[in-house]
Amino acid sequence: MIKFIKDLKFILLNSNNKARAGIIETEHSKFETPVFMPVGTQGAVKAIEHRELLDLDTKIILGNTYHLYLRPGIDLIRRFGGLHKFISWNQSILTDSGGYQIFSLSDLNKISKDGVHFKSHIDGSKHFFTPENVIDIQRYLGSDIMMVLDECVPYPAIYDYARKSQELTTEWAIKCKNQFLRTSNIYSHSQAIFGIVQGSVYSDLRKRSAYELIEIGFDGYAIGGLSVGEPKNLMYEMTSICTEILPDDKPRYLMGVGTPEDILEGIELGIDMFDCVIPTRNGRNAMLFTKKGTLSIKNSIFKDDESPIDIDCNCYTCKTFSRAYIRHLFTVKEILAYQLATIHNLYFYHWLTRKARQEIISNSFKEWKNNIINQIKTKITNKGE
Amino acid sequence: MIKFIKDLKFILLNSNNKARAGIIETEHSKFETPVFMPVGTQGAVKAIEHRELLDLDTKIILGNTYHLYLRPGIDLIRRFGGLHKFISWNQSILTDSGGYQIFSLSDLNKISKDGVHFKSHIDGSKHFFTPENVIDIQRYLGSDIMMVLDECVPYPAIYDYARKSQELTTEWAIKCKNQFLRTSNIYSHSQAIFGIVQGSVYSDLRKRSAYELIEIGFDGYAIGGLSVGEPKNLMYEMTSICTEILPDDKPRYLMGVGTPEDILEGIELGIDMFDCVIPTRNGRNAMLFTKKGTLSIKNSIFKDDESPIDIDCNCYTCKTFSRAYIRHLFTVKEILAYQLATIHNLYFYHWLTRKARQEIISNSFKEWKNNIINQIKTKITNKGE
Repeated sequence: MIKFIKDLKFILLNSNNKARAGIIETEHSKFETPVFMPVGTQGAVKAIEHRELLDLDTKIILGNTYHLYLRPGIDLIRRFGGLHKFISWNQSILTDSGGYQIFSLSDLNKISKDGVHFKSHIDGSKHFFTPENVIDIQRYLGSDIMMVLDECVPYPAIYDYARKSQELTTEWAIKCKNQFLRTSNIYSHSQAIFGIVQGSVYSDLRKRSAYELIEIGFDGYAIGGLSVGEPKNLMYEMTSICTEILPDDKPRYLMGVGTPEDILEGIELGIDMFDCVIPTRNGRNAMLFTKKGTLSIKNSIFKDDESPIDIDCNCYTCKTFSRAYIRHLFTVKEILAYQLATIHNLYFYHWLTRKARQEIISNSFKEWKNNIINQIKTKITNKGE
Repeated sequence: MIKFIKDLKFILLNSNNKARAGIIETEHSKFETPVFMPVGTQGAVKAIEHRELLDLDTKIILGNTYHLYLRPGIDLIRRFGGLHKFISWNQSILTDSGGYQIFSLSDLNKISKDGVHFKSHIDGSKHFFTPENVIDIQRYLGSDIMMVLDECVPYPAIYDYARKSQELTTEWAIKCKNQFLRTSNIYSHSQAIFGIVQGSVYSDLRKRSAYELIEIGFDGYAIGGLSVGEPKNLMYEMTSICTEILPDDKPRYLMGVGTPEDILEGIELGIDMFDCVIPTRNGRNAMLFTKKGTLSIKNSIFKDDESPIDIDCNCYTCKTFSRAYIRHLFTVKEILAYQLATIHNLYFYHWLTRKARQEIISNSFKEWKNNIINQIKTKITNKGE
């Protein structure tokens, strides 16, 4: 066992008001922030090949502890020398702790101070996740960035429940940190650990959560429990409260967010990292993002549209195919439809965060954002537009 | 309208007994034979991108007149300047006439001397295909190689039905040829036309069909109505009867065939062109082909197998991923599983025909074939094998 724990490298290059441009470096990759991290729940980003992700300049993807623990199982991944080797991905991986999935996917989850009992959504088998064993599992996975176990409360939640849950999340964060310190990386690369701010939509709970996590000390801080159905203004308000408190010298990660609009708002509020299934899932559902707005490619208006999804886009899909052909592929349910939509949407999401970064560096983020945000929210309903 | 009809270029380089190595050239591509043509029924080869097909050195794919006529419709494809432009594929395309699909997919097909009435398998709408209009449709599609309308009889069929059907197929072939001569290519490239030998498993009907088609005169000759359930020896016997008669200076195409074994047998009997959904469809069903045999990757024996599908294979899938990971992807139903399996299986099929060609050129085909055919039929049930 190699004992080699070090802090995650994070360099803050420029701030434009609260918006930040930085660099994160793990032992697998160095990437610029703000960054969008494609979601590879089960060890694969849906409908796209690893080499295509590399083409898009993806330097970090997400893996999901809950799913990978159930299938293919941690023993197998351990035998392969960790998740990077098992899935043949040599860039960075962040794994979430499984907290969110336990509460959203599994049956009969029963929570206690020690952890959470749950039944697999696949076969009903019983399992128990604790703050300690999710760290152990993530040690075996060998992710570059591990997450603490948290309780993700649904929206709406009464104050008293949110308060108790936030307290529990802090207790679990302490236990996770202690387990992190007691253990070492199993493979030859080091691993960082992020805390997760909870507290529902209650500003005092969010503040308390943030302060308590800072006190414990993490390599980075995530904001969890948002984008779960609350109004957008509350999501932005909670994010803002957290980023006001969180230390400048650590990365900040807004979990599970979001639409292009949400990402721009998050960046403005000082968020560095994002993940979301929207570009991949919506892509497979024929919703495509462009600089000029979103288009539902199944719309019959695009039936004979010879233009690409986005005339200004340099992705393989836009450089090669017409809207009419992609619409046809969706109509006849060709897998190629999902592949081409995924390539385009991820390309767009990466473009969005990179462009935001350039604007932050040239101190023009806010003007650019205000300009583009109404465009990207538009629904495109005309040919060639 | 550009009037520019010329023969398909076919050069026979070497024969090794009946097996042939040649070159076919259309105005879109030049390709070596024997050739395997991936099936792009609806204008896309399932689960693989065009650029990936080009990487595999695919120079010709199939399109399906029946499917494309129904969706997206011929008007749309015409407006785009033909199928090549609509699907953004700049190599060759062969379109089948739709005969096979009418009889296998559509409801209530009613056949007459003039053509066949059928109901769409999608919406029940009524249509009528004639020898003349399938040529017109393929003119609009702009395929490099068009096929005549034929009746594909099921197996088994009584002699009298097979005889009448063969006679009808010849009549239709005459009508198709006449329509071909009466019309011109609509786009700037020329189009060739192939006849289709029918006659079920009756050698006298097969012979008669072949002689009649040669009399009409085509740019190439296909053998249809095989691999429809008849015993393998009958398929090989019928193929042999046809290739004995068909002219040496024209390509021969065994339609819808087949397994790697069938392809090798077909090559030995003098076939130049093959198409089949087996590599793509079976790939999506977790059946993978290798030089040492086939493997059902879902088999639990491969659960922790670190070796690639085929250690001797240079495809992206084998160069990058383990059997264990690919098995996991199939288990959790990731689209990536279908993508990786398709890449590998098509790579293998292309390898098979190219290797066969090398052996034909060095006059060692038969020895090589006898050697490899038992290997490729084997079922691999051991790790790392």
